[in-house]
Amino acid sequence: AAQAFQSPSPPSLAQPQDFLAEAPPQARYEPADDSSSSEAAIAPDYPLGAAKAQLHKTYIVAETASGVCIVDQHAAHERLVMEQMKAQYEQGQIKSQALLLPEIVELPADQTEAVLAEADRLKSAGLEVEAFGAGAILVRSVPALLGQTDVKSLLSDLAEELVHLGGATALSDRTGYILATMSCHGSVRAGRRLNAEEMNALLRQMEVTPAAGQCNHGRPTFVTLSLADLEKLFGRS
Amino acid sequence: AAQAFQSPSPPSLAQPQDFLAEAPPQARYEPADDSSSSEAAIAPDYPLGAAKAQLHKTYIVAETASGVCIVDQHAAHERLVMEQMKAQYEQGQIKSQALLLPEIVELPADQTEAVLAEADRLKSAGLEVEAFGAGAILVRSVPALLGQTDVKSLLSDLAEELVHLGGATALSDRTGYILATMSCHGSVRAGRRLNAEEMNALLRQMEVTPAAGQCNHGRPTFVTLSLADLEKLFGRS
Repeated sequence: AAQAFQSPSPPSLAQPQDFLAEAPPQARYEPADDSSSSEAAIAPDYPLGAAKAQLHKTYIVAETASGVCIVDQHAAHERLVMEQMKAQYEQGQIKSQALLLPEIVELPADQTEAVLAEADRLKSAGLEVEAFGAGAILVRSVPALLGQTDVKSLLSDLAEELVHLGGATALSDRTGYILATMSCHGSVRAGRRLNAEEMNALLRQMEVTPAAGQCNHGRPTFVTLSLADLEKLFGRS
Repeated sequence: AAQAFQSPSPPSLAQPQDFLAEAPPQARYEPADDSSSSEAAIAPDYPLGAAKAQLHKTYIVAETASGVCIVDQHAAHERLVMEQMKAQYEQGQIKSQALLLPEIVELPADQTEAVLAEADRLKSAGLEVEAFGAGAILVRSVPALLGQTDVKSLLSDLAEELVHLGGATALSDRTGYILATMSCHGSVRAGRRLNAEEMNALLRQMEVTPAAGQCNHGRPTFVTLSLADLEKLFGRS
């Protein structure tokens, strides 16, 4: 008779920050081909490894030299956008992209007021807004980093955030919340299919971005399992 | 400042047997194409899901309706071969494949003796051996299930196993060990690259094989992570 199933002990999870700190990328990625001689070239040079699959259109699975890395694509990309925005903001101005046609967004009165009260700060953050009658806002430009974005949804989220923050929050925190909300809108969502090239581009960008191991909410953007962790899952320890 | 990294709580791992018992395969697999309409067809019908990637040429990662399944390819295949061998053995005779040229395997005297003492049982198991002078064995045929196999390595492992077992083991156990050792030689090894078709074939075969959730040594052949487990890994619980 087969032995009773032993629930394997859980793998230990590497802390993303440590992982990135210990093993910075050092060399060029050699694209894999089907010859076995290319095998050695895939992973060793990159801490986050070579993308192998996307799971549930949400997680990127990568093979690293020492094991496996699983990335939350939205959390990771959000962080990358956030860091780019912060860098531009600290240099004085977030790059703005004029809309081809200004967009009018209707909002509740308190939200309209909260957004217009921050118009200067929003302009520094790349978002140009102005009053448009009662309970509506005209949007002339958005941060260039956001790319194609749903302006109504962005304004709505920002307005809710600003009302929620009220007047009590420190200015620097307020700016941080604005940038975080905009980053979220500029990020690839969970549920979007990514091809291998897009996945690898994300991994490579994460490796050179400060704090890329944590999303804007402090959660990990990736977790790693070593080969030993994998063996433990299968009772081989 | 970013919050301190919280090591996520470990995912609970489903017990393979229960998993297979609860959700037998019920319908045909629809091959995936790139249109989004095919998305829904991939996983729901198959407990072990659709193969998405092979990691470290050892593990198959599959996407299931409810999460992710990771399969140890060698352990899983070994079990499949074992179950096929057992079924044939219980029907009286394991199918044998004559070698084009009989192979001579040299072994230490005690091992030669142990193998020849079991010649009848080995024949029932599809392996025909006979004495070939002192310290050598002639192999005429091997179990057909093993396919292309390294006869010297198989004989050497079997001989070691038989010497190790000695005369004290019950006959049924002895047969079990012989079949297990042969199954191991008929299985895809860790370290062999599998294409998507091969991976999916293995998953589909596991789903219809008794006890496919455990390898011949009682370890799990696959582990599953639910979507909730994955979210927990990323602190989203």
